[in-house]
Amino acid sequence: MDNKKEINAAILIIGNEVLSGRTKDINTSTLATWLNTIGITVKEVRVVPDIEITIINTVNELREKFNYVFTTGGIGPTHDDITAESISKAFGVKYGFHKEAFSILEKYYKPGEFNEGRQKMAKMPVTSNLILNPTSGAPGFNLENVFCLPGVPSILKSMLGGLKNSLIGGAPILSETLNLRTVESEIAKSLTEVQNQNIDVEIGSYPFFRAGKLGVSIVIRSTDKDKIETCKLEINRFIKDKNIEIVEND
Amino acid sequence: MDNKKEINAAILIIGNEVLSGRTKDINTSTLATWLNTIGITVKEVRVVPDIEITIINTVNELREKFNYVFTTGGIGPTHDDITAESISKAFGVKYGFHKEAFSILEKYYKPGEFNEGRQKMAKMPVTSNLILNPTSGAPGFNLENVFCLPGVPSILKSMLGGLKNSLIGGAPILSETLNLRTVESEIAKSLTEVQNQNIDVEIGSYPFFRAGKLGVSIVIRSTDKDKIETCKLEINRFIKDKNIEIVEND
Repeated sequence: MDNKKEINAAILIIGNEVLSGRTKDINTSTLATWLNTIGITVKEVRVVPDIEITIINTVNELREKFNYVFTTGGIGPTHDDITAESISKAFGVKYGFHKEAFSILEKYYKPGEFNEGRQKMAKMPVTSNLILNPTSGAPGFNLENVFCLPGVPSILKSMLGGLKNSLIGGAPILSETLNLRTVESEIAKSLTEVQNQNIDVEIGSYPFFRAGKLGVSIVIRSTDKDKIETCKLEINRFIKDKNIEIVEND
Repeated sequence: MDNKKEINAAILIIGNEVLSGRTKDINTSTLATWLNTIGITVKEVRVVPDIEITIINTVNELREKFNYVFTTGGIGPTHDDITAESISKAFGVKYGFHKEAFSILEKYYKPGEFNEGRQKMAKMPVTSNLILNPTSGAPGFNLENVFCLPGVPSILKSMLGGLKNSLIGGAPILSETLNLRTVESEIAKSLTEVQNQNIDVEIGSYPFFRAGKLGVSIVIRSTDKDKIETCKLEINRFIKDKNIEIVEND
């Protein structure tokens, strides 16, 4: 891959519910797909439990290593929501009521409903930039290159638009998929040759089983549309030679 | 939580397709849920790209840190399947044809169909123990505390039964869920008190939105059924006081 201008990111999923298997994480897919459109490549994902020292150490490791870190989960009102306090400690910034967040939440709730639990959602590193939440009021927050988002997928998704201006990406990462009626072993050698001749393009091969039939999805990823087209041509050439059928795209 | 007898594990998901957002990982949920039944707790998940040095470094870090490591993905026949060779390098064990794996695959395919691509699936650290694959022939493999499984969810799932005898777990981790018609902020304070009085039980609180209505799932996890019952009693007491309705379970 052409890494010279790559802007990268890590995603840190905070939550026992993913580690226990109860919740299937879909935020990685939402975030990574969206980040690709603004030219940011996700290079690592970690899932860690609701344990303060683990969150602190992990976020401090990842924020050194990657251009951006996006955390999800742990910013609600209950005892297991410890992300905001942990991030404060990771940065050595005071944890307390964020004036602007407090004011947003005070207006969001009806008079008398802004109770202690809800007030907790205004507590965060006091110098944070807020990430506005058009769905349910409680904002996320940003300190330096770390962006903290909620775990509820629909809420997270609604907050991405508000993030865009805070991020500096590269060229959008483009992707094309060819779905073939074949098995991987039939095309492995030819596909390796295409990959070797196009080393700055990422070519992935993924078997699938749909409607009772086996197939392989070839995914070609690059920031350069022409390079993707070149690979497609080369792949089309060998699948024609092998009499392999192209099936409907995803 | 009561950590004195805890047997822990990490899951290492190897694959660009998860980092690009194209594929939503469901293997973590399958593995973690199954491991809990045999008393193994997943403490960390990492997703890394198909890059040899990253796989080597990550597996070497995780196998030191946790009792078990389970990898998924990258053991197929194509150029992007580099798990087996990377694990060989991580352990300093020769990568080559595994006699037993070769023999299994040779019998699995019809005469003449055991081609070069398929033969690659018999290459792995030569001293590995095999993990049998009742679905599609190609075995996974195990070296010391590291177990390498395929990425295709249905195949991974079919291989778990064959793993059981190789793992030494603890007491099964039990879990109970109470679904409440409330919002988190209403119960946050009372729930914190229950958690503080039962520090060796893990209590999680997860908002949900189903059939147009908001609710909260309280998940109580422990190896001790009596401790879970105690928490349930205490939670039932405060939800009765607050007139909160219990809704159908998952």
